[in-house]
Amino acid sequence: MARPWRLLSIRSFKQFTLTTNLNFFSMNLNIIDILTAKRDGDALSDEAIRWLVAAYTSGDVTDYQMSAFLMAAFIRGMSEAETQTLTRAMLYSGEVLDLSDLPGIKVDKHSTGGVGDKISLPLAPIVAACGVPVPMISGRGLGHSGGTLDKLESIPGFNVNLSISEYRWQLQQNGLVLIGQTPEIAPADRKLYALRDVTATVPFIPFIASSIMSKKLAEGIDALVLDVKCGRGAFMQTEPEAKKLAQTLVEIGEAFGKPTVGWITNMNVPLGRAVGNWLEVEESVRCLKGENVPEVMELTYVLAGEMLCLGGVAETPEAGCEMAQEVVANGKAFDKFLKIVQAQGGDPRALEDTNAYPNLAPAYDIYASDTAMGYVQEVDALTIGKTAVLTGAGRMKKEDPVDPGAGIYLHCKPGSEVHPGMRLATLYTHKTDDVPTLQHAVISAYRFGEERPAPAPLLIQRVTGKQSG
Amino acid sequence: MARPWRLLSIRSFKQFTLTTNLNFFSMNLNIIDILTAKRDGDALSDEAIRWLVAAYTSGDVTDYQMSAFLMAAFIRGMSEAETQTLTRAMLYSGEVLDLSDLPGIKVDKHSTGGVGDKISLPLAPIVAACGVPVPMISGRGLGHSGGTLDKLESIPGFNVNLSISEYRWQLQQNGLVLIGQTPEIAPADRKLYALRDVTATVPFIPFIASSIMSKKLAEGIDALVLDVKCGRGAFMQTEPEAKKLAQTLVEIGEAFGKPTVGWITNMNVPLGRAVGNWLEVEESVRCLKGENVPEVMELTYVLAGEMLCLGGVAETPEAGCEMAQEVVANGKAFDKFLKIVQAQGGDPRALEDTNAYPNLAPAYDIYASDTAMGYVQEVDALTIGKTAVLTGAGRMKKEDPVDPGAGIYLHCKPGSEVHPGMRLATLYTHKTDDVPTLQHAVISAYRFGEERPAPAPLLIQRVTGKQSG
Repeated sequence: MARPWRLLSIRSFKQFTLTTNLNFFSMNLNIIDILTAKRDGDALSDEAIRWLVAAYTSGDVTDYQMSAFLMAAFIRGMSEAETQTLTRAMLYSGEVLDLSDLPGIKVDKHSTGGVGDKISLPLAPIVAACGVPVPMISGRGLGHSGGTLDKLESIPGFNVNLSISEYRWQLQQNGLVLIGQTPEIAPADRKLYALRDVTATVPFIPFIASSIMSKKLAEGIDALVLDVKCGRGAFMQTEPEAKKLAQTLVEIGEAFGKPTVGWITNMNVPLGRAVGNWLEVEESVRCLKGENVPEVMELTYVLAGEMLCLGGVAETPEAGCEMAQEVVANGKAFDKFLKIVQAQGGDPRALEDTNAYPNLAPAYDIYASDTAMGYVQEVDALTIGKTAVLTGAGRMKKEDPVDPGAGIYLHCKPGSEVHPGMRLATLYTHKTDDVPTLQHAVISAYRFGEERPAPAPLLIQRVTGKQSG
Repeated sequence: MARPWRLLSIRSFKQFTLTTNLNFFSMNLNIIDILTAKRDGDALSDEAIRWLVAAYTSGDVTDYQMSAFLMAAFIRGMSEAETQTLTRAMLYSGEVLDLSDLPGIKVDKHSTGGVGDKISLPLAPIVAACGVPVPMISGRGLGHSGGTLDKLESIPGFNVNLSISEYRWQLQQNGLVLIGQTPEIAPADRKLYALRDVTATVPFIPFIASSIMSKKLAEGIDALVLDVKCGRGAFMQTEPEAKKLAQTLVEIGEAFGKPTVGWITNMNVPLGRAVGNWLEVEESVRCLKGENVPEVMELTYVLAGEMLCLGGVAETPEAGCEMAQEVVANGKAFDKFLKIVQAQGGDPRALEDTNAYPNLAPAYDIYASDTAMGYVQEVDALTIGKTAVLTGAGRMKKEDPVDPGAGIYLHCKPGSEVHPGMRLATLYTHKTDDVPTLQHAVISAYRFGEERPAPAPLLIQRVTGKQSG
């Protein structure tokens, strides 16, 4: 837009700001100068960013001042150096775990979030079963994308709330630990994330990247694999954006001395067939028991190969991929998963016999219309993700409870041939009154066509930095 | 700066924002959409701006959300239409007085603030003495610029805290009332002003203009004269900025059907010789008693001429100017001032004999050095204004008390010939310990030179809209 009312001269106003900010002469750093600088498009010094994050964490800078900063930075941009400094400041706002006394190269994976993305569930036990320790701190679902913690908690008894010392002990004993963010880790990120959410400053790569990396770097990892989702059901909807985020994440990882590899992967369609907490655990269990669930195992093996290579037990990602397939085939990966579940208080019976799961929500099949013919062309991940939230499987607000047994199972995916009256999907929900609406929403996610569609590639691009390339 | 980390595609992120803002489908207007729109440089609808101001006033929109909006609007700009809607929304956040049952065309003056700007004190009684009712709601000083309320309150007993009904009664009885902003008037402005002050979003013309005009339009005026200060001691430091602000103010006034005339006037040097609350009352009293204090009376008569012309008692501003000089010469203006002071509880004795004023602070003369020769070239208004605050005459924070009898009197102004040891100025302060520092600060405001400087014009430009041109 034209800016006819914008000030003609910024410089003279800066002088004004200095004169009204009467603390200026007695303090080297203060919020008004920092806001003024970012407002006017200046880059901030390392010192200024560190001061800002520390002052916000301590409460000396208020929410309303920080939100003004978030908006100014969003609009004016942040450089690579500013983003790295922001990450470092957020990382050191809390405890940074040191796992160097534990043997092995600790490797974690982070996904930017998608629909049906249960990859951590088969991946972590596979990598651990191959001898690479996996210290995994996960998040909860919000909006249309799910969270590993909610999935784990659908297993009766599973406890994700371990203390830091329990976390270390668990990792040492079993080579794998699956927990949620503790209060000690990156408190600045928790505060900032909540503020971004209510001030329209979420979708900005420097904030996204510093939020992810400050938490991951605090885990005590030695290396990291990133799954940057791209498409309609993802945070990043286009490949250039996904690539930019992946590069930023990899650059931050390497700047902190942690070899980091990223994969940009397709999230136009839900991953696998299950969307919902227990439904995804069940699908993961089938994977770990050796069923080659399309997409899920393809992606799991690729990421496992990267982690095993970074973890030093495989020469190449390809060799790591083969190791991963072996531990699935010989049952070691599933054994590892059962062990971890038991170690974290979970009841393994429902994993051994998934039909015994006690909390599955009532099922409602969804059928194609009487005129449906041809092939499924698309199943829109965003629509499925939002509808899954409405079944009770996800949350709209952080405080909302989730229904572990709710969700959507997709019998037909792109490429499936359809006939009139064929079962497309099954809803699992306790929200009986909403079933017609939910059924309609699921059907609206499907697009049909006469021709069998060409398969869309799952793996879009591998992104590496200088050290891991 | 380069923005290498800025998102590549804004559009796709908007979609994301809509998906995370889960209330979107159930509400027509919500803060996230408004923030997203302004963040991305879109203009806001009238409805959106009205909703925003109302929701902020009621507390449904939080401070941290509003500060994000303020920053986004500051950086992205606001159109003329948006600024007028913002003004209207702020105006109608509170009570809008209707004085149409009182006779006469009610005219007020507003100054954007400067150092030694006591013009309201002689001006208001002059205009009222000529038969044009003046309903004046003034502010307090903050930072280096003074406020009419503080000056009035230096008169023992003077009460600026009248209720709305007392305000009407006073105006009806005496044709003039001088009060402070009541809680009923533009509450949104009060909240926004406080927030802007702590979020580096003060110096932005749409905010400045809507803040000024929402308060003035709430007074019940029929026409308005604006004194837009320009220079080192002013909010607007350059002529283009001052002109832009003046035009914006005039356009808003006329958009509301109130004929509005603006004058851009010089604020590089303090206005008159007195800077400080009682000191300025005393200087104003001398003006009203007929002393032609340079600058003060020049500006007072010009603004009075405009007000009398807008008020319908003079054919032209020049004729109004002559009427104003008459009521000073025949004592009617001073009589009006005494009457108002008494009507608002003030003790007139100190006005009749200013030597009887009981609260003057101890005086400390400041002399030129032993080598001083030539002429005063400049007396920096900003330095004098800030030093006057430090004498106790002003406040750094809203809560600070002011010393009515403190301030600075300038015996020498630009053009004055100086000799070694000549008295330049007098400090009035109770802060005995600070006297050497304050003396040094006052001297630093002076610049001397060999040549007598050319007089700087006080009146820079007259700004009118279509109706008042």
